[in-house]
Amino acid sequence: MLTYCVRRLLTRQESSHTSLFSVSQALQVIRGRCSDTHEDFDQVSTLLNLCTDRHYISPDQSHRDSFQRGLSCSYAPLGLELRKNLLDQWWHSVTRSRAQVFGISTLSCSQERAVGGDRELKVVDTESLNQVLDLKELSRAQLSQEAQRLLRRMASLRTNIFQGALEQYVPSLDLVKKKLPFGLAETGLCFQPSDGSGCPAEVTQTSLVWFCSPRTSGQWLDHWAQQRLQWWRKFALGTSDFSSSDIPEDELGAGVSRGVRILYSFPWGAEPLETLCNRGDAELLQAHKGVRTKLLCRDGRKSVVPHVVSVTGNMDRGVMAYLCNSLQQLKRVEDSKHVLKQRKVLKLHPVLAPVKVAVIMVRGATVEIRQVCEGLLQEFLEARISAWPGYLETMSTSVEQLYARYDEMGVLFVVVVSENTLESGLLQVRSRDTTIKETMHISEVKNFLARYISAADNI
Amino acid sequence: MLTYCVRRLLTRQESSHTSLFSVSQALQVIRGRCSDTHEDFDQVSTLLNLCTDRHYISPDQSHRDSFQRGLSCSYAPLGLELRKNLLDQWWHSVTRSRAQVFGISTLSCSQERAVGGDRELKVVDTESLNQVLDLKELSRAQLSQEAQRLLRRMASLRTNIFQGALEQYVPSLDLVKKKLPFGLAETGLCFQPSDGSGCPAEVTQTSLVWFCSPRTSGQWLDHWAQQRLQWWRKFALGTSDFSSSDIPEDELGAGVSRGVRILYSFPWGAEPLETLCNRGDAELLQAHKGVRTKLLCRDGRKSVVPHVVSVTGNMDRGVMAYLCNSLQQLKRVEDSKHVLKQRKVLKLHPVLAPVKVAVIMVRGATVEIRQVCEGLLQEFLEARISAWPGYLETMSTSVEQLYARYDEMGVLFVVVVSENTLESGLLQVRSRDTTIKETMHISEVKNFLARYISAADNI
Repeated sequence: MLTYCVRRLLTRQESSHTSLFSVSQALQVIRGRCSDTHEDFDQVSTLLNLCTDRHYISPDQSHRDSFQRGLSCSYAPLGLELRKNLLDQWWHSVTRSRAQVFGISTLSCSQERAVGGDRELKVVDTESLNQVLDLKELSRAQLSQEAQRLLRRMASLRTNIFQGALEQYVPSLDLVKKKLPFGLAETGLCFQPSDGSGCPAEVTQTSLVWFCSPRTSGQWLDHWAQQRLQWWRKFALGTSDFSSSDIPEDELGAGVSRGVRILYSFPWGAEPLETLCNRGDAELLQAHKGVRTKLLCRDGRKSVVPHVVSVTGNMDRGVMAYLCNSLQQLKRVEDSKHVLKQRKVLKLHPVLAPVKVAVIMVRGATVEIRQVCEGLLQEFLEARISAWPGYLETMSTSVEQLYARYDEMGVLFVVVVSENTLESGLLQVRSRDTTIKETMHISEVKNFLARYISAADNI
Repeated sequence: MLTYCVRRLLTRQESSHTSLFSVSQALQVIRGRCSDTHEDFDQVSTLLNLCTDRHYISPDQSHRDSFQRGLSCSYAPLGLELRKNLLDQWWHSVTRSRAQVFGISTLSCSQERAVGGDRELKVVDTESLNQVLDLKELSRAQLSQEAQRLLRRMASLRTNIFQGALEQYVPSLDLVKKKLPFGLAETGLCFQPSDGSGCPAEVTQTSLVWFCSPRTSGQWLDHWAQQRLQWWRKFALGTSDFSSSDIPEDELGAGVSRGVRILYSFPWGAEPLETLCNRGDAELLQAHKGVRTKLLCRDGRKSVVPHVVSVTGNMDRGVMAYLCNSLQQLKRVEDSKHVLKQRKVLKLHPVLAPVKVAVIMVRGATVEIRQVCEGLLQEFLEARISAWPGYLETMSTSVEQLYARYDEMGVLFVVVVSENTLESGLLQVRSRDTTIKETMHISEVKNFLARYISAADNI
């Protein structure tokens, strides 16, 4: 495989007169290379360094740790954009895959949810609690009691997002004329107790709660498990890193009859990205105080209380998985001196890549060239093509160094504006995946990029 | 104005041979009508009823109350989609308006933020607090002290989103090569202490924190205030309901030298949608423990500690404002019997409307017609045109009743599939804003809708 890649790279000069940026070609090259990566644990620290240096996450150590553990952290611009793109794709794939999936948004805090367990996260208004603690007339025992009573009355933060959809089941029946199956989708933050630091962990969850006939809930679980795995693999370089497996019986929660996990094989082991459970009707009944009649829904000609299939994902871990999956450390042949040199590239899928194009100018550029750069950037931004103002940093860095930097950022294309552009309207477009540079007229670039991204979306 | 509208409606038959759905024409009609609305307080309960009946918010009274107060509530599918569209437009307008605005995402909980004041919202792990409260060996005073000490160590929920950007100022300097001005944008949930119910209020905030030279901060405040007001008015029917005004000096927070509010005139009075403040450098210094040298940034040839202009919005109230602004209760002339009848229409701007098109079929339709509907819906969804499966509810309702329902939902167009469609490929497309029906070939509908929406976006 490696020979193939190197050969392709070496022969790129000859073939540069044909269209070198066709998506299928680029993906072929990428797929060819991916077997050479993910070999050792060093990759993790390389990746985390790259994430902080290349504006994916905040450089603080605590954020690096959270991120590696699949938790939300302070995202820098590229990490934010990557998670945004991932959430957007998830939403599109789930809510628009079928007519009967509807999006909802519920609150993060609730007084009613019976989360259960000792380790609830309560939102405490310090003023109220301090008032109780300051009551001098209470005895020690009374004080303790009073404080606990207050605590019970306070709202809990959600630890899992699917509870909201169970509560919205009844108001949603009108949407579907009481006809099964249908689904409620939601994305949002969830909170988990900390491991001692005092700061709860935050996770960006996705949730599809699918209400269906008890007869068919097993088939629906299989359907969604397959659909979800396919979705994760759609954006992967190395699809074998994404897998699914049944949850062992002793790990299933109460009331869950079967479960499936979509896993990613991180260098330190497999971790779940999305979890599917056939939950029966117990939690739905509990959320509506056991009133079966309110819950009845039509399954063909019968009226039934539906079973619930939940699909819950962790998109912070999803971001980490795709970053892991797409980082390639390649040996490459330098053009002029035939020296082997290492190159790091973040080969994120075109629809996920947070920056599609960087606009740069050659060193010693004139005011006019800079104005062309600004105009081009504005054109991209207005067309909703995420663009990077590389010309702001051109002064101090060579074009080759900028290519290397943008490869590490996962930028799909670099557009180079030069003196020549002013004269002929031509500029150079350099591809992250093929490293090939092609000359293009300035008026064509925007449409070329738009077509490239949408073609990649449809493969 | 009313005469003009009625005349237009009466003459629509004559002019129907020309293209009746041109965006500018439609907007003209809308603008003409808007002066006849927003007349009295009854509108509020009409609007809230419509919001719950037409799937904007959850029907529960507490959600209606929260929503009216400009707080987050349980959103039903249409409300969720409307807020999503609004947030998306905000994000696009702010992050893509200038090369130097970068998006970030910070955590909702923090141990370090000195929020100040008695009324902090602490996230309390019930297990830890109960352990303290159960310590039998402590005296009453010790118990109270110990509990308060624990409380201080717990993380706070953010009450305002802009604090995160102040913390991310230093890591962001690398993005801009330490050059002013630049901005950090973020959207997310914030929490506010409850008024007694025990459940904190949640608000979907938007935030742009603009770091600029102290010399120019006043001008930047004016620039952003103007840009924001223009943005809000872009999607409005009645632009006069959106206004801006300086914050009176006695209402300015500590350290804020000047402030501007973007207001919406609700039936019960004006309320702020977005607030702009010139905050000086005090909070930035405080967030970085007063270390000036870390904060220095280039303003031309000088190095300065920047001043902060914050632009903070409430998008839940934004949703309420646009719903208020776009609800029209019109007298209309019935086609056949010349009877005046009232019609409610939610004339949301095309880019904000949560559903762009509903697909319905005539009553007594065949299986084939239904399949055409399903295919068409799928085509729209894949093209990311938000579509409503109206054919699922056609059975029990007349086409006229469905038009009325979709007008109340703010659906831009209704596509009617009939027997005729199977034979000739022609279907009827009915416009919310003009109420005119036009015949169109099934192959043209998707592109027509896409063009209509994007044209409305660019006006």
